[in-house]
Amino acid sequence: MQLWFSEAQTPHVDFSLKINRVLYSGESEYQRIDVLESKEFGRVLTQNGQITLTEKDEFIYREMMVHVPLAVNPKIKNVLIIGAGDGGFIHDLLEYPGIEHIDLVEYDEKIVEVCKKYLPDISSKLDDERVSIFYEDALRFVRRKEECYDLILVDSIDPFGAGEILFTKEFYGNCYRALSSDGILINQHESPFYSQEALTVQTVHKRIVQTFPIVKIYQAHIPSYPSGHWLFGFASKKLHPTGDFDPKQWLSWGIKTRYYNPRLHLGAFALPTYVEEILKNVE
Amino acid sequence: MQLWFSEAQTPHVDFSLKINRVLYSGESEYQRIDVLESKEFGRVLTQNGQITLTEKDEFIYREMMVHVPLAVNPKIKNVLIIGAGDGGFIHDLLEYPGIEHIDLVEYDEKIVEVCKKYLPDISSKLDDERVSIFYEDALRFVRRKEECYDLILVDSIDPFGAGEILFTKEFYGNCYRALSSDGILINQHESPFYSQEALTVQTVHKRIVQTFPIVKIYQAHIPSYPSGHWLFGFASKKLHPTGDFDPKQWLSWGIKTRYYNPRLHLGAFALPTYVEEILKNVE
Repeated sequence: MQLWFSEAQTPHVDFSLKINRVLYSGESEYQRIDVLESKEFGRVLTQNGQITLTEKDEFIYREMMVHVPLAVNPKIKNVLIIGAGDGGFIHDLLEYPGIEHIDLVEYDEKIVEVCKKYLPDISSKLDDERVSIFYEDALRFVRRKEECYDLILVDSIDPFGAGEILFTKEFYGNCYRALSSDGILINQHESPFYSQEALTVQTVHKRIVQTFPIVKIYQAHIPSYPSGHWLFGFASKKLHPTGDFDPKQWLSWGIKTRYYNPRLHLGAFALPTYVEEILKNVE
Repeated sequence: MQLWFSEAQTPHVDFSLKINRVLYSGESEYQRIDVLESKEFGRVLTQNGQITLTEKDEFIYREMMVHVPLAVNPKIKNVLIIGAGDGGFIHDLLEYPGIEHIDLVEYDEKIVEVCKKYLPDISSKLDDERVSIFYEDALRFVRRKEECYDLILVDSIDPFGAGEILFTKEFYGNCYRALSSDGILINQHESPFYSQEALTVQTVHKRIVQTFPIVKIYQAHIPSYPSGHWLFGFASKKLHPTGDFDPKQWLSWGIKTRYYNPRLHLGAFALPTYVEEILKNVE
């Protein structure tokens, strides 16, 4: 049997994976969730038919969200994760001896439940005693917080649907208030290549630049995401992502990575000219 | 009407583009050639059903092949291009005032003919008086040459078909002999992500490392190529791609680029850990 999953990366571009079988299909209160077993990418988690992660390349996204800020501020203790109910970020964060507590705010409990069952390696640290999970609205959650996190990781999806509030100025303002004086916010920034997503990049970038004094964008190659060219926003109150980067300290931890390394940390902030121009237009 | 072009990037991954119309379909002595008009990527040139270039993202490949070596050795005068009958490299090379002559060796005359007709912007400089086009076997051509080129650009395709000779040790050895003492060879190195292509990366890398004293790999985001993560090999007799890089000289030319810039030049040589490991295994 030929079974193929297709994602419309744009209305005119499809990305399709050959599937062995569908492991899970369900509807939560908020969305449709599927877990597919693919031949090339291993297990694939989709939300409303869009790839959230694949076993083959989720390490790239995860490592670039987690290790970049930890290598800039080695004293990070308290972390807030918004979205990312799969638990991947937690897995990597807990490799650092200094991490004391992680709050995970995920609006959809079903995602956590499905990931625990079908992606056990990625979600294995969700039950760690240093982790608290809150199933609620992230905007409301972060509104109550003041100077209590050293790091906020924003894994927003769906800027035109349920995740829309995570792309507002109010949300980033509340994140700013929730961060300590050394605080860093890392935001998944979408892709600069296709025009619709490039507009999202600009919208998000504009809002973060209006909120944080230091904002720098970096990039990675994520083959299962549209265009494969993905951006991340590093925003902070005072730390600079390359100026305050401490490669020796990071190497001393001996953390094993497959994508991230100190040379790549610096290289990732060197953007193509057309991406610089997209960003400059809204700065 | 719904008309879609699909490329099997691996046996288990399809990349599909919505097509307005097929502008050209033909068979040369060597291959099938098509030019498609796509909604998202503009005109698309395919050889045997694989995307060679698209109007939307060919600038990335072209700029990364041409500007990296020119920014390392600003005295490049004589260039040999193997493949790349579309003329894109020539377009960018002739922006440099020092370029005296370019030899283009393309085994398939039909490619040049089709590109001149259907991709006139990209191929516009093929008739420049500084350009000589040879329709012949590249291995035989380069065998006759000794220390006469400052730069060789190898745009090989199809490592398991007609282009196979461009992946042999003999070929790279002949390139070495054909280069001047400052000579640089730039080789398209395939993608490290899917396993079949990663094997090609290793095979090619091994052969170049055995031939040239300095070999460094760099990368770019090319959305229309499999995985979007593409590698290039910089090989030379004595110039180092970052140590001998001269950003001031390059900026003084005022050449307009959309992907390449001096910061990116350095950043592109910082590879992900898993790519470093693939390369190290054969060094």
